[in-house]
Amino acid sequence: MSKQPPENTDPRVEALVNQLIGRVADKWTMLVVEEMAHGEELRFTELGRRVSGISQKMLTQTLRQMERDGLVTRTIHPVIPPKVEYSLSKMGKSFHEPASALGTWALDNLERIDQARAKYDTAAN
Amino acid sequence: MSKQPPENTDPRVEALVNQLIGRVADKWTMLVVEEMAHGEELRFTELGRRVSGISQKMLTQTLRQMERDGLVTRTIHPVIPPKVEYSLSKMGKSFHEPASALGTWALDNLERIDQARAKYDTAAN
Repeated sequence: MSKQPPENTDPRVEALVNQLIGRVADKWTMLVVEEMAHGEELRFTELGRRVSGISQKMLTQTLRQMERDGLVTRTIHPVIPPKVEYSLSKMGKSFHEPASALGTWALDNLERIDQARAKYDTAAN
Repeated sequence: MSKQPPENTDPRVEALVNQLIGRVADKWTMLVVEEMAHGEELRFTELGRRVSGISQKMLTQTLRQMERDGLVTRTIHPVIPPKVEYSLSKMGKSFHEPASALGTWALDNLERIDQARAKYDTAAN
């Protein structure tokens, strides 16, 4: 019989973590957090410029989910016309650390992954 | 004028990292890595049991991508019937650390996010 790793996690907690990982382990969420990590308040258009490749629709959706999750604070400045700015909440800032570690890992392993893919694709054809 | 953060990243590197984050910042990839992190070789069916909620099709696709990226090693044992087992490569093991940090963050902030969502949803209705 094979030895099983300890399994003492509450299945409800597991389901929630699973769902939450699905939310935060999201490319656009991570890239938006990275761009916001400098601490500035940013407008929608400026964010869109910084996160290369994101569509308006996807940025709207990502920001709304991040606001709902409490990662992003949306501030409406009472000027005419109203100015809306986004910044990381305290929790959003704490999320930057693990998100950034994953980005660093990706950067460090870029070449290795590229090589693995080339090898795999050659073997498959 | 607002101060801009330094932007000295090669756009090609940025595009690759962006694409790679899209690959590894994937819920199923992270959950599969977590289950494999104990170091055992696992069969497809056993992995499917451990990663709760994953479909056969999604597990097949996730494992294939992870193998292509060099994160997972697929071993075919020459027995009858052939026995196929999956384990983390050295690079896959190094990926476990940042992936796991993200999972820990999710677990630590579960309640806060739950509360933020409830507040947001109340305000929206």
